[in-house]
Amino acid sequence: MPSTSTIKESYTDVLIIGAGPSGYMAALWLARCGIPTRIIDKRSNEIFTGQADGLQSRSLEIFKSFSEDCFDWATMDQAWKVANQMEEICFWSPDEEGELARKSRIPDSIPNISRFTESVIHQGKIEKWFTESIKNFSGGSIEVERPLLPVSIKIDENAKDQQDYAVEVLVRKLDDDLARPEQYGGIANGLYRAFDGDQDKFYNQNIDDADKKDFELIHAKYVLGADGAHSWVRKQLGIDMEGEQTDFVWGVVDIVPITDFPDVRSRCAIHSKDSGSVMIIPRENDMVRLYIQLKEVDRDVETAGDAREFMGNCDDPKAKTKGRIDRSKITPESIINQARESMKPYKLDYTNLTWYTAYQIGQRVSPNFHRHSRVFIAGDACHTHSPKAGQGMNVSMQDTYNLGFKLALVCKGLAKQDILQTYESERIKVARDLIAFDHKFSRLFSGKPMIPNAAMLEGEATGSNMDEFHSVFLHGSRFASGTISDYDNSSLINKVGGATREGHEEDGVFSPLASKVPLGRRLFSDWALGQIDHRPWHFADRLPSDGRFRVVIFPGDVKQYPENMEKLHSFNEPLMAPESFLNRYTPRNAFFNSVIECLVVHASLRNDVEFYGFPEFARRKDYRGRVDYWSIFAGVGKTHNTSTKVDIYSTYGIDKKAGAIMVVRPDGHVAQVSEYTGEGLKQVCDYFSGFMIDQREIAVPEKDVTSYDSDRFEKPRLAV
Amino acid sequence: MPSTSTIKESYTDVLIIGAGPSGYMAALWLARCGIPTRIIDKRSNEIFTGQADGLQSRSLEIFKSFSEDCFDWATMDQAWKVANQMEEICFWSPDEEGELARKSRIPDSIPNISRFTESVIHQGKIEKWFTESIKNFSGGSIEVERPLLPVSIKIDENAKDQQDYAVEVLVRKLDDDLARPEQYGGIANGLYRAFDGDQDKFYNQNIDDADKKDFELIHAKYVLGADGAHSWVRKQLGIDMEGEQTDFVWGVVDIVPITDFPDVRSRCAIHSKDSGSVMIIPRENDMVRLYIQLKEVDRDVETAGDAREFMGNCDDPKAKTKGRIDRSKITPESIINQARESMKPYKLDYTNLTWYTAYQIGQRVSPNFHRHSRVFIAGDACHTHSPKAGQGMNVSMQDTYNLGFKLALVCKGLAKQDILQTYESERIKVARDLIAFDHKFSRLFSGKPMIPNAAMLEGEATGSNMDEFHSVFLHGSRFASGTISDYDNSSLINKVGGATREGHEEDGVFSPLASKVPLGRRLFSDWALGQIDHRPWHFADRLPSDGRFRVVIFPGDVKQYPENMEKLHSFNEPLMAPESFLNRYTPRNAFFNSVIECLVVHASLRNDVEFYGFPEFARRKDYRGRVDYWSIFAGVGKTHNTSTKVDIYSTYGIDKKAGAIMVVRPDGHVAQVSEYTGEGLKQVCDYFSGFMIDQREIAVPEKDVTSYDSDRFEKPRLAV
Repeated sequence: MPSTSTIKESYTDVLIIGAGPSGYMAALWLARCGIPTRIIDKRSNEIFTGQADGLQSRSLEIFKSFSEDCFDWATMDQAWKVANQMEEICFWSPDEEGELARKSRIPDSIPNISRFTESVIHQGKIEKWFTESIKNFSGGSIEVERPLLPVSIKIDENAKDQQDYAVEVLVRKLDDDLARPEQYGGIANGLYRAFDGDQDKFYNQNIDDADKKDFELIHAKYVLGADGAHSWVRKQLGIDMEGEQTDFVWGVVDIVPITDFPDVRSRCAIHSKDSGSVMIIPRENDMVRLYIQLKEVDRDVETAGDAREFMGNCDDPKAKTKGRIDRSKITPESIINQARESMKPYKLDYTNLTWYTAYQIGQRVSPNFHRHSRVFIAGDACHTHSPKAGQGMNVSMQDTYNLGFKLALVCKGLAKQDILQTYESERIKVARDLIAFDHKFSRLFSGKPMIPNAAMLEGEATGSNMDEFHSVFLHGSRFASGTISDYDNSSLINKVGGATREGHEEDGVFSPLASKVPLGRRLFSDWALGQIDHRPWHFADRLPSDGRFRVVIFPGDVKQYPENMEKLHSFNEPLMAPESFLNRYTPRNAFFNSVIECLVVHASLRNDVEFYGFPEFARRKDYRGRVDYWSIFAGVGKTHNTSTKVDIYSTYGIDKKAGAIMVVRPDGHVAQVSEYTGEGLKQVCDYFSGFMIDQREIAVPEKDVTSYDSDRFEKPRLAV
Repeated sequence: MPSTSTIKESYTDVLIIGAGPSGYMAALWLARCGIPTRIIDKRSNEIFTGQADGLQSRSLEIFKSFSEDCFDWATMDQAWKVANQMEEICFWSPDEEGELARKSRIPDSIPNISRFTESVIHQGKIEKWFTESIKNFSGGSIEVERPLLPVSIKIDENAKDQQDYAVEVLVRKLDDDLARPEQYGGIANGLYRAFDGDQDKFYNQNIDDADKKDFELIHAKYVLGADGAHSWVRKQLGIDMEGEQTDFVWGVVDIVPITDFPDVRSRCAIHSKDSGSVMIIPRENDMVRLYIQLKEVDRDVETAGDAREFMGNCDDPKAKTKGRIDRSKITPESIINQARESMKPYKLDYTNLTWYTAYQIGQRVSPNFHRHSRVFIAGDACHTHSPKAGQGMNVSMQDTYNLGFKLALVCKGLAKQDILQTYESERIKVARDLIAFDHKFSRLFSGKPMIPNAAMLEGEATGSNMDEFHSVFLHGSRFASGTISDYDNSSLINKVGGATREGHEEDGVFSPLASKVPLGRRLFSDWALGQIDHRPWHFADRLPSDGRFRVVIFPGDVKQYPENMEKLHSFNEPLMAPESFLNRYTPRNAFFNSVIECLVVHASLRNDVEFYGFPEFARRKDYRGRVDYWSIFAGVGKTHNTSTKVDIYSTYGIDKKAGAIMVVRPDGHVAQVSEYTGEGLKQVCDYFSGFMIDQREIAVPEKDVTSYDSDRFEKPRLAV
């Protein structure tokens, strides 16, 4: 290794190691917020076939939140359009004669849990939109640098200031050919990565021989290790993975099937009598992904083919200790042969085989997700599990969706470094729930059929077997949707005044003031009407991921209760004052609403009140005198074109006389609900004073306002 | 001019002259269908600010139809997302005290006339998505070539074969600087084009001196002149414009207003007491376009400024004969000053002035839209009118949306050249209606207030004045939406068996078999559920603009009436036979459904019937054995996630026992409705035999299948 004093050195606020979904999501946040960021990957290739494919509701919500209507390029929400939206899951198992039969057919996503239902598309497309969005947000300054290999990492534990460049990472530029993943046969597959990782391959090169010009020492304020299940960063930090080491082995193929199986365009769980299980995931462009439980079939050597040589029998508890498998024996044909057996008497052939792999991954979690709040790990680097519930990519992206805005706030000097600790506390709980969920959910698809006997779709469900299944599936689907991730009390979440509902603890903690909005979870969306122009908006679309906190004031019905409008006007002076939370945490050279945005959603008919009847804080002018028209909403009424009923007060359980004040974090999670009173406003003030940095004493930096938002007439969305 | 024998010569199926909305739409169709096409423009610049901005419902539907879910780029439907969706139109006029007051507020688009409501965005963005879509569809082979000036055109009137290259166009490459439009002041404006055209500027150059290498002789099968109001192509063809030569003069500015006028984010018609009219069009990104009636104000020289020198008084009938105006006297300030007067007592200031112009355009139509079915004109080249109803860009795009698929069918040798004559017959009627509409609609915004006295939104409308207004506005809005363009009987439209409703002739002609579907108009969309996977689709999204005709069989309720299912099965043999219309018009090397696609929409609950219970013609296999899963729909039921009711049979007025068969053209217009019987099927056959070319005797061409659809596993959507 070369002496660092002779090689190139550089500085960045955040260095992201690993360009998978987790790393991309972090880069997207940081690009959106204008944070100097680099993202590196040791592989030279950019687009994969295969890999992860499932997008859960919450991931699609997050994509949408980065896809504001003013962006004229193919934003992240393109995924919802291009992906196959899976409507149903069908359960197939032997009937009384032992013939494979459809036992039930239910919605794949729980109805109305989100605007978006589970959808499937290959990871390469998603990474394409990530790349394009990051490029657009950063004005081209952030793009994945590859192949760059991290060689060493050093944290200055004594760094005091949150703006110190406290982490040094030495990286080496690799040879393109060296960094290209190996292929087995002519078809792309994920076997190498799934079973061996490829760290050794990279690090076994004699790096001492490398030219000094290939090395670079990167000084970063913060570093993210998003470098997968065999994470180099995690190993450097000396963090373990805890949990079981192995699992049943599942094979995966991406094909266009030629079959007479009637539900091949629905998600299916097929439990054959004696030939194991198959999960069908219908994909974009007529493609289908099959997950096949690979098993040793002593009884039928011919059909099992090579498989028997390396597979543990799924029903054999000893399988868990059989250790690593010989990947060279896994072929697409061996996987498909197994599926053929399970799906008899239906025929299965295929064209367009584009990818295959096999998984034997443990259910494991790291006990720590960071070191010194300077270096973080996310995604597969800190939790691994089976791929059957389509969770991997989702939970990984949601990890860094949690971390990203916090890093942005800290790097900008808007919030204290302490908030970074909430990343571990909030996400380790989700990771542990994920492992518990994966244990349970696996049972649904492995081993002997535990399948309902009647169709559920038309409400015909009866019998205890059904009930048990229903309960497991329902809970599983809710968890899997990603919409119920629940963050506990911390500097960023205040559930004081909330309570669980008796017998429904898992539904979350609610304030009586907004009795249907779970505290600490993401705010679900419903329609509201713009006061200025009657345009209907999904309210979540007015809370985009642009780094801002939102204080949403629900003043109730201001027509029927004139005192409610009076109270709103009485808020004007405290909110417009220099010491107001709206002003004190906003840098002096920044737009008035670029750190905390204040929205008003009233409960009067829109035509009963006038825009200019609302106080000035809700329709502030910018430095050029341009009015903010977009912060006042009618929460009741109906839309013009479709006559859709609007009543977000009922949806959120807010009383139309009492009102409420809600704080929503930049990631859309509900931080606090307080009374619509002066006292409630003070609680909002207290919330922000717990972690935000008062900007009034800080010298205005010389830096230019970031330019990424020039299409909005230079209004930056996050300050400085 | 150089001798043609010494200059470069080239060949293309279609040459488009002029890259505005009309030319782009033609290029989009031809790119989508894989037709060798060139598009040239004499200007060197690509993106405009200002220009047209209104997108009507039908234009947005057309954009959506070119935006299939499999495309992963920013497709045309991005316009709906980025544009400002205008919800309301507000009418302001003096109240009893003579003070400006809001008199009524109604939905800007007629509710439920379309999925899309009128929206506004500047033309440059739309041209960006056109450019990107054309590039993607054509694999990069079609892009605007500029600056290229057409110099001469010659039609071989004796050309017999529709594939002959019967038109010669000599073009000259211009110097970039020469082709750049002039600017007056530092701000982009449209004055030059609006008042003078710029033909002379280009043709006054001494082209004899030009180098021969600058010239090219393009041989085309067909040529489109989409070269604007001062169309060179039209003049070469010796086609006149008929109608009035002048109009009142309106000024236009694009600004971000600084104002206390409360409805500045709605479309507004403001009639001041003595200071003329203003129309407000709220745009994307807080921008607003103002249309201001410019007038000579003898009474108040100071506030009228320069305007009095060149403007006719709007109330003066002699204004129509005053001839051309002096554009150099029109400034943004003079236009805005006039607006200020009209909007008093409200204040009006602005930032971000980005464009301005003034219009003095006649209401004129050409008597012919083509010569010899070889050279066509479209858009402003054959009809001009006032800009106030936001029709120009829309009708222009819809002209070539009509022509494009016909050119594609003829160039591919699938349909006879005769069908090209329906372009003029179908579109000249729309153009004439447009002029009549413009006359009427102008009254609403010009001259003395003829404005309702009560708010209409809450159903409070009373009084005869109101009724008259309501009727004019309602009819106008329906026409302006573009959704009621009605094409008469021709080889491509068969209304036999249809009738108008007594007293509602303007609603169109209906077959009793589908009593709510107007024949000859575009098929409006409603929900249907995919039989294979229960996925809800807006049915129009299953009829994308890919060049195909659709035969939609509505077999009724096949569960309740088993004979309906039997009948469907009895269709299998005739439809699968080589002489079937599905086969005889499809080239032998093309996919089975690439010319005519057959869809089935039944009226049974989706779970009451099985996909494989439907006959084979509705689920055909391709040459690799892959099943078409996407042609069978349940037309009744409800969606899983939103519990939206689905009942397209009621929407279309189709009896669930009798059923019906509908033919839909590639442009979404309903060509014919016939009985769900063998006789009805024969009528479908007769329809196609009237203009399609039997492919069974034609040698298979050597050409490759076009490659643009490889993402769909090489299934081309239009044959050969």
